[in-house]
Amino acid sequence: MTAMPQSAPTPLTLEQLKEKARLLRIHSMRATTAAGSGHPTSCLSAAEIMAGIFFHAMKFDPSKPNAVGGDRFVLSKGHAAPVLYAALAESGVFPVSRLMTLRHLTSELEGHPTPRIPGVDAATGSLGQGLSVGAGLAIGARVQRSPARIYVLLGDGEVAEGQVWEAAAFAAHARLGNLTAIVDVNALGQSGRTMYQHRMEVYKAKFEANGWQAEVIDGHDIAAVVAALDRARSTLARPQAILARTLKGNGVSFLADKENWHGKPLSKDDLAKAIAELGGAPEIEPDNGRSYARAELPKPPQFPPLPATNYEAGQMVATREAYGTALKRLASILPQLVAVDGDVKNSTFTETMEKTAPDRVFQSYIAEQNMVSMAVGMAAQGLVPFAASFACFLSRAYDQVRMAAIGRSNINLCGSHCGVSIGEDGPSQMALEDLAMFRAIPGACVLYPSDAVSAERLVETMARTDAICYMRTSRPKTPVIYKNQETFPVPGFKVLARTANDRATVIAAGVTLHEALKAAVSLKAKGISICVVDLYCVKPIDADALAVEIRATGGRLVIAEDHYAEGGLGEAVLAALASAGVAPTVVKHLAVRGVPHSGRPDELLDKFGISARHIAAAVEAL
Amino acid sequence: MTAMPQSAPTPLTLEQLKEKARLLRIHSMRATTAAGSGHPTSCLSAAEIMAGIFFHAMKFDPSKPNAVGGDRFVLSKGHAAPVLYAALAESGVFPVSRLMTLRHLTSELEGHPTPRIPGVDAATGSLGQGLSVGAGLAIGARVQRSPARIYVLLGDGEVAEGQVWEAAAFAAHARLGNLTAIVDVNALGQSGRTMYQHRMEVYKAKFEANGWQAEVIDGHDIAAVVAALDRARSTLARPQAILARTLKGNGVSFLADKENWHGKPLSKDDLAKAIAELGGAPEIEPDNGRSYARAELPKPPQFPPLPATNYEAGQMVATREAYGTALKRLASILPQLVAVDGDVKNSTFTETMEKTAPDRVFQSYIAEQNMVSMAVGMAAQGLVPFAASFACFLSRAYDQVRMAAIGRSNINLCGSHCGVSIGEDGPSQMALEDLAMFRAIPGACVLYPSDAVSAERLVETMARTDAICYMRTSRPKTPVIYKNQETFPVPGFKVLARTANDRATVIAAGVTLHEALKAAVSLKAKGISICVVDLYCVKPIDADALAVEIRATGGRLVIAEDHYAEGGLGEAVLAALASAGVAPTVVKHLAVRGVPHSGRPDELLDKFGISARHIAAAVEAL
Repeated sequence: MTAMPQSAPTPLTLEQLKEKARLLRIHSMRATTAAGSGHPTSCLSAAEIMAGIFFHAMKFDPSKPNAVGGDRFVLSKGHAAPVLYAALAESGVFPVSRLMTLRHLTSELEGHPTPRIPGVDAATGSLGQGLSVGAGLAIGARVQRSPARIYVLLGDGEVAEGQVWEAAAFAAHARLGNLTAIVDVNALGQSGRTMYQHRMEVYKAKFEANGWQAEVIDGHDIAAVVAALDRARSTLARPQAILARTLKGNGVSFLADKENWHGKPLSKDDLAKAIAELGGAPEIEPDNGRSYARAELPKPPQFPPLPATNYEAGQMVATREAYGTALKRLASILPQLVAVDGDVKNSTFTETMEKTAPDRVFQSYIAEQNMVSMAVGMAAQGLVPFAASFACFLSRAYDQVRMAAIGRSNINLCGSHCGVSIGEDGPSQMALEDLAMFRAIPGACVLYPSDAVSAERLVETMARTDAICYMRTSRPKTPVIYKNQETFPVPGFKVLARTANDRATVIAAGVTLHEALKAAVSLKAKGISICVVDLYCVKPIDADALAVEIRATGGRLVIAEDHYAEGGLGEAVLAALASAGVAPTVVKHLAVRGVPHSGRPDELLDKFGISARHIAAAVEAL
Repeated sequence: MTAMPQSAPTPLTLEQLKEKARLLRIHSMRATTAAGSGHPTSCLSAAEIMAGIFFHAMKFDPSKPNAVGGDRFVLSKGHAAPVLYAALAESGVFPVSRLMTLRHLTSELEGHPTPRIPGVDAATGSLGQGLSVGAGLAIGARVQRSPARIYVLLGDGEVAEGQVWEAAAFAAHARLGNLTAIVDVNALGQSGRTMYQHRMEVYKAKFEANGWQAEVIDGHDIAAVVAALDRARSTLARPQAILARTLKGNGVSFLADKENWHGKPLSKDDLAKAIAELGGAPEIEPDNGRSYARAELPKPPQFPPLPATNYEAGQMVATREAYGTALKRLASILPQLVAVDGDVKNSTFTETMEKTAPDRVFQSYIAEQNMVSMAVGMAAQGLVPFAASFACFLSRAYDQVRMAAIGRSNINLCGSHCGVSIGEDGPSQMALEDLAMFRAIPGACVLYPSDAVSAERLVETMARTDAICYMRTSRPKTPVIYKNQETFPVPGFKVLARTANDRATVIAAGVTLHEALKAAVSLKAKGISICVVDLYCVKPIDADALAVEIRATGGRLVIAEDHYAEGGLGEAVLAALASAGVAPTVVKHLAVRGVPHSGRPDELLDKFGISARHIAAAVEAL
């Protein structure tokens, strides 16, 4: 796990590093001019910094730039992608000629970096997330006893994002001495001057207040950059911030520190002038046909199946509790398993794992954005992260989840305390939009178990699945309904009751599944039978199989969910049936409509129309 | 607008304030024990602080506690709701007897505060948002030339949330001398000790690094609390942080600084012991029948209709540009209108308003969470805030939008650059989940205009609408299709083409509406006519009216949207039809499936299956 880099760049002289910086500038401008869009001036301010990081400080194998043993780099200011691509090309990760494909439909060199590119560990471009990813990579290196160092380049504009300070606080608290942040303080944002402009002492005070070693340098003095990077490397007790005073557009007289150049490529004429000012550009050599690094994100590890669970039918266990039990069991056989908590481990039951594997549970405190982006960094080191919070608080990290999906990250998330069934704490603690949120994440797997057996099995499935997985767990204890040997394929659902003469198909999950089962009993007393479906996998849905059930009840459908009406089970089912070409003849959709409030769980289920009584009434009205 | 409080509390002696703190403790424990849940120990640490704020520092009229002219209080650590309710009751905002209804289904005294309670301006309970709300209230007071002061009580646990530091940086930069933050540093989180425990100097350094006046006090020394609040009141140049060292559960020996008491009420026996230790409790007097304050959030102002727009048919104007133009026109007749930007005003076109009303456009820099919660505070001061960013970056503030909805806040949000049609910048800059996100906000109005006329009219509608309104705008220029006199009711849609023999109804909005219109032309050449629907209002939907259109084309339906397949136009339409009891016979749903990438807008529309060619093919295949 701690393979050292197989080759390291030969140390370059300061003159050679200056030449690298010059080339990075030229590549960045050429590529954006060819693309007709992009952010060349945001690249120019970072040229010496990038030269220092890539050609002096970093030790990595250009044929395996994402190896655990090698140093890693995160471009948090993702819009400076061209200078990263230029540095990767000059490092030999891919040919320089490829830079001219920037932003083409068929090129992996997109407007902002994604892990489709070797050497990139996470998608960036939504600002302020990179330091958290870096912290996750640093934790990943530490867990795997790698001596590697993580470098993160931030812009000054993005330092306004609170997540940067979540990550800063965490990294110092966790004593991540293997993490170095460099802030490219060019003082110009997209639409004007940044908040602090070149008041470098403010940035220094902020990082120091958060427990970092911090120093201010001239970011265009390559000797200063190199010296600061050397000092950072020799610091092991805490993370280091290098605050580099730079000018946006530096190196080209008509760009340097000029407003209204953000996100604008140079015209061909301006490009020629700029290159002339920089002393002329080399010819772009055609690719010499040698083989290059491939972009490979870690895949989920293989591991033997967990032994069957040991529950009794009817035993009262909350799915959130089963989540914790499953994590603990997984941890005992899967060394790559790690968990991240946001100070709610006693609610999500992450603490169950912590009791037996404390060194693999990381406390991110109340900072959900950092928690999720850190998990992305951990996954990029080959770990299998599970991050959990109240489901409603994962809405705090929706942008981070979105970016994780763009980066094809293999993180696992669990949200507890869904729906009105949490009761008295009230709406701020109820997740009623989490299914809508996670269903709209491309490629995500969205799971919603209703009992302890399915919850445990599905946690195991999450660890094996190469996608963002989300599990929704419930606060109340619910009876175990499945046998310990039951399996839960993804996609899939379970039919819990079925006769030849069912009045309707009732689809539910979580607490409403148990309400549906109660409704089935009360309806049976009236001579009415129903088909009850446990839709434990909300995304993907086996649409054709589900359509068979709906057809069997004459297209009569009742859906009950402890979620708002939009984007949850109901719409998932309607969309699946539409895609399968089946039109339900009549649909009763029971969901939470309007903002709920405090009350007892049973009162709330009833008041918001999703209790057994309402399900039975909906069936009878069909 | 600057009405001074009509009455102010008589100054109390330190002994009287100590007695108030004692009562706040007793009320908090009694109410939570009666409720059987809640967070009494989180109230106890704040007793002296709350006594000092409510009975010494704040000047407000208990019969109108949310008045612009009065001081305001935000309980950012919302789980300490009982101590807030106790302070409001002791202030005479409502009777003390009401405290015993805590967390009942029919009580407005919910588990966490919402503006259903007089004296509460914003829902809290998702931590770390209150300081931003306070900054918005402080801006609101300043804009309306009120001398009022805003107090925000935070917990130390929540200070790990990055949003706190977004707000801190903003407040100092904006020189909000009328904003006082008090941090109740009780050193215990939910699941363990906080990151910094009682290292008070760390908090002080962080606030100072962000430009605040900061001091550390003993939070249980009422004289120290009062003195610090007095010093804060006399500071006008910058915001002030009072960092109060406290003990969770202080005042009761078996609770003080004890772990595992978070979120747990006392048993009746423990309550009796605690009250005895505190010197005994007064009888709870029955309500004396006097009238009390009513909870009233500001309603949108009345204002005359904007004159008609002045576009020409076919004129190429991006809806994002029309958004800016409409804001500018509104600003000229609506003095309450304010705008908040996150350093993208030249992309969202908020800058158009800034050119003529610069004093009403606030720069929140790249900090979307703070931007949205600040807007909530502004709205609570009777302003009409419009906050805009790239639609994808509003996902950063989903939790804040969620809380705004729980607080029935009347904020307006605009998200630009939706969908793959933004082109080369790539997926990190494309909003493809924003409709799913905002549709799942209860009571929200979700608008998606396709041309400049409708965009301008709908901006006006947002300002008049008493709900969270979201407008999705597009990056590309699109032709004006409506007459300047056209109106756009909410809910509503427009039928742009209709014959007696339409093959299908095609529903679209934004760029795909223009693709649908192109498809109509190419289909017409083949002798096929279609009904084209502009679904400019995605939520609410006039389901019955829409059902009429679908029935008229034999239930044949094509939906095309520049959004992921989940939670957007397609599912909104399917759900509406299901609620109207209409089953479409066949549905083709064209949406973005999978993570997109960089490319030209036209290439991407085509590659992801939502261009005119694909719409025409879908119709032909019906």
